[in-house]
Amino acid sequence: MEGIRSRRSIRQFKPDDVDDRIIKQIIEMGTWAPSGLNNQPWRFVIVRDEDLRKEIAQQTRYGHIIRNAPVCIAVFLDNAASYDRVKDIQAIGACIQNMLLAIHHLGLGGVWLGEILRNRDKVEKTLQVPEDCELMAVVAIGHPAEAKGEGTRKPIDEVILHRK
Amino acid sequence: MEGIRSRRSIRQFKPDDVDDRIIKQIIEMGTWAPSGLNNQPWRFVIVRDEDLRKEIAQQTRYGHIIRNAPVCIAVFLDNAASYDRVKDIQAIGACIQNMLLAIHHLGLGGVWLGEILRNRDKVEKTLQVPEDCELMAVVAIGHPAEAKGEGTRKPIDEVILHRK
Repeated sequence: MEGIRSRRSIRQFKPDDVDDRIIKQIIEMGTWAPSGLNNQPWRFVIVRDEDLRKEIAQQTRYGHIIRNAPVCIAVFLDNAASYDRVKDIQAIGACIQNMLLAIHHLGLGGVWLGEILRNRDKVEKTLQVPEDCELMAVVAIGHPAEAKGEGTRKPIDEVILHRK
Repeated sequence: MEGIRSRRSIRQFKPDDVDDRIIKQIIEMGTWAPSGLNNQPWRFVIVRDEDLRKEIAQQTRYGHIIRNAPVCIAVFLDNAASYDRVKDIQAIGACIQNMLLAIHHLGLGGVWLGEILRNRDKVEKTLQVPEDCELMAVVAIGHPAEAKGEGTRKPIDEVILHRK
């Protein structure tokens, strides 16, 4: 719970690399999220090559983060494995959260990039994923090179509703 | 990471109660999920009253779980706070995953119920939530009265895609 509470988005990274073994461990943690009927609709592309990162980076105004992170993981919903769009998208969110918690636990930093969905067609084409795969997010990962922000949330009593 | 790996859905509960203080702690953990532009679109209703649980239970074929759990948390997307439907639904999924991990960490058991969305209008009416609030899931919580299942996932190399 301390891990959940202390995790923050990290957008600046040291040049140090992150091993593929670690990246696969992060993805594996993602896959332990629950999904409706255990359909596991998530798919991943590991984006490490610098030229490829530069190409993907052009599709978002947060491209500098993708260019500077040693590795990114592009996360997709496989619509061929889908059974209910809302529940599948929730499952993808749960999967990404597991990945972010794992990244934090491993002493690394990461950020969930969503603005890139605006150009998801181009990213899907660049990454050559099957037609049914729909980009859901890009997670940038590296060794943190910035202090963590404070993190602000609404008071809990503002998000708990009561029957009249 | 051990927590992520060992969490399982728990559907059978002992009659023992779960304190409201604990329930609020679980919800607070949910709210530490990231959301797009930090819009925090999640809302919660704590469903503890037995008659109310029985009424909600009628809206799903998994009603016995809701009837037997001492407490349920109904999770909503507040469409008035929404900025992008896909990203908001992902954020709700991340929030629910945090709640499930917190439940597990606290030695409790829980299950994410989604089939009830089929009758979400009736649940929303029963719980008297604002019109903009859309039911996303019900999380049943209690003290576990069953052994955890094994948990099966696809081999990681089946979900990692490669460029041709």
